[in-house]
Amino acid sequence: MDEAGLDALIATSAANVQYLTRFRRAGGALAVLPRGDLKRPQLIVKSSSISFSLEDPCDQVGVHVYGNFIRFVAEGVGLTDREARLLELHNASRQDADPWTLAAEILTAAGLHRGGVGVDAVLESVSKLSAALPELKLKSTPDLFRRLRMVKTAEEISRLAEAARITEHAILTSVQSAFLGVTQRGLARVFDHTAIEANSFVRQDNVSIGRSAAFGNLNTPGDVVADGDIIRYDVGVHYEGYASDMARCYAFRTADDRAVRIQAALVEGERALLDAVRPGVTAAQIFDVAVGAVRKAGIEAYDRTHVGHGIGIAGAGYDPPLLAPSDHTPLEPGIVLCVETPYVEIGFAGLQVEDMIVVTEDGYRLMTNSARHLRVVP
Amino acid sequence: MDEAGLDALIATSAANVQYLTRFRRAGGALAVLPRGDLKRPQLIVKSSSISFSLEDPCDQVGVHVYGNFIRFVAEGVGLTDREARLLELHNASRQDADPWTLAAEILTAAGLHRGGVGVDAVLESVSKLSAALPELKLKSTPDLFRRLRMVKTAEEISRLAEAARITEHAILTSVQSAFLGVTQRGLARVFDHTAIEANSFVRQDNVSIGRSAAFGNLNTPGDVVADGDIIRYDVGVHYEGYASDMARCYAFRTADDRAVRIQAALVEGERALLDAVRPGVTAAQIFDVAVGAVRKAGIEAYDRTHVGHGIGIAGAGYDPPLLAPSDHTPLEPGIVLCVETPYVEIGFAGLQVEDMIVVTEDGYRLMTNSARHLRVVP
Repeated sequence: MDEAGLDALIATSAANVQYLTRFRRAGGALAVLPRGDLKRPQLIVKSSSISFSLEDPCDQVGVHVYGNFIRFVAEGVGLTDREARLLELHNASRQDADPWTLAAEILTAAGLHRGGVGVDAVLESVSKLSAALPELKLKSTPDLFRRLRMVKTAEEISRLAEAARITEHAILTSVQSAFLGVTQRGLARVFDHTAIEANSFVRQDNVSIGRSAAFGNLNTPGDVVADGDIIRYDVGVHYEGYASDMARCYAFRTADDRAVRIQAALVEGERALLDAVRPGVTAAQIFDVAVGAVRKAGIEAYDRTHVGHGIGIAGAGYDPPLLAPSDHTPLEPGIVLCVETPYVEIGFAGLQVEDMIVVTEDGYRLMTNSARHLRVVP
Repeated sequence: MDEAGLDALIATSAANVQYLTRFRRAGGALAVLPRGDLKRPQLIVKSSSISFSLEDPCDQVGVHVYGNFIRFVAEGVGLTDREARLLELHNASRQDADPWTLAAEILTAAGLHRGGVGVDAVLESVSKLSAALPELKLKSTPDLFRRLRMVKTAEEISRLAEAARITEHAILTSVQSAFLGVTQRGLARVFDHTAIEANSFVRQDNVSIGRSAAFGNLNTPGDVVADGDIIRYDVGVHYEGYASDMARCYAFRTADDRAVRIQAALVEGERALLDAVRPGVTAAQIFDVAVGAVRKAGIEAYDRTHVGHGIGIAGAGYDPPLLAPSDHTPLEPGIVLCVETPYVEIGFAGLQVEDMIVVTEDGYRLMTNSARHLRVVP
């Protein structure tokens, strides 16, 4: 914020509202973060959604309610603390206000009605705020939010690690269940059920069989496993508001020699990539290391658009950086990355390894740990 | 389009792109629909996502590809039709183009470079298109898209009906599994697993127990079922790109008299609401009927902000109309509605009935059919 010369930030997207306040209910919510009070983000939420401010609560967040929602109150009953808080929020609602009125009031109360304010949306979409506070200096700063979200807090790292652990567990459970003739849908379901049992939701349950793996993450439910087939997982879950993304490949009963060699080269590329990870190294440098190592390991024509990406809040797509030639972001401790060296050959298969890591002061820590070569199952 | 004086529509949101083309992969896709060729929507998609154009294919959709994604091709192997199509799309990619360049070219080829074009976004976000075609008369028309999506096609109705059937099946399976001491999380998991077995994904798995039902759709995983507790489901799934939303309440082993009476009044309100549904009746009229009937049936203070809403594409929120005093949309055959009469009493419970219906020429057809009163389980 200092760098950008801003006095406050306003988040309008679900991911950015969650980032500032932990509130995870899309629709109608805003968050305001004044620079003078960084520990006290202000959440603006419609009355119908106030319960969700109790889901993942954070004492420091101030909650401001607008709009009308009808709730009755039991007579002659002592309320629990939680019920009393619900009632307090319900009664505090400004029934005729809209969220931008409340945002304008919060900024004014902080003495910022003429301040510089960064918002994560295009300015045309926040015209109500500029109408309410005509002297406000609004700037559209979606990239600032993306940069803020790039380096994770300890709590975020812990949630991402658990999402990764669940994903790996569900891959292993699914592939261990494979039998001759099992369908793609059958394997994906074992992944799904396992993820649910581990308190997560399925983000992507792509299991591909044989040549279908060249279709990327498109599921083809009727595919059937036969001897020698590649079974490829590129999957992820949502856990407590955070996403995972990892990939593994297996060979059913017997492994094709060429597939084994390709997978070994991809794993070698990822190993070299991991060896290069430390603070200060840029995303583009990591890319060069990975692609170079896969080529040296035997796939001479190997190329990629990227070899990984940041990951964070569920439903928000990739976080920066993108491990690609055009991204010169230096790595920092706390950045969580998915690193990957995928290979797609139409008419043959898709092969891939993808792991989740957190960048540390002196390198990285893996969040995923299972064998990466083309293991034969069962 | 005629009404709005538009020569073409451009969709940028995932829901609107899906509506025009059946393509269901968020991120980087656009759809263009020229008025002169309504049967041939044009999908613009990045190379990394082309597989997903094969997921739910529609012969009439023209596919235009941009960007770079690296795929190899097996040597000396005959390709399947699907692999050949993937390769064709891959090779057709305009590597240096962005989606707006392709949109500008499609409009120009259709002779519409000076035409009136409606887009579902704010104009500031489509500045690349106005730069490419400075004579284009662009209008921001998100409401037009919402109106188009309000009346469903036969295929949409069939997917919504299946989503509703799965949801009802999963509610019944979950509540039949209830035992003394089962947790909220346990009941929600049975719902989740059942939805997955039925080829759907969980949209919302809110099961509430006892007084927690007054917290709306916030899950409180550690709640435990005891004698006399209300078990309330307000749940939905995503099935083939379409969403469901329905609610039922049960009483565990014994039912509180007051809860039985309240639920009966809510069911009576929904019955009166359903009796009023036919083409031409407005959303606001339906609202009045429902609220009036609940009051007459015994909850004299009953009130609501709305008693239902349209439903359609997964992840897109409610469709219009909103069954609320301010919405004067007349019902039409093909509108799919969730109709509901919820009651929330902090310190007591939440009670609710919610069903999915499609409006027909002479009334409505139910998509959900299980008993609505406060049934005692098991």
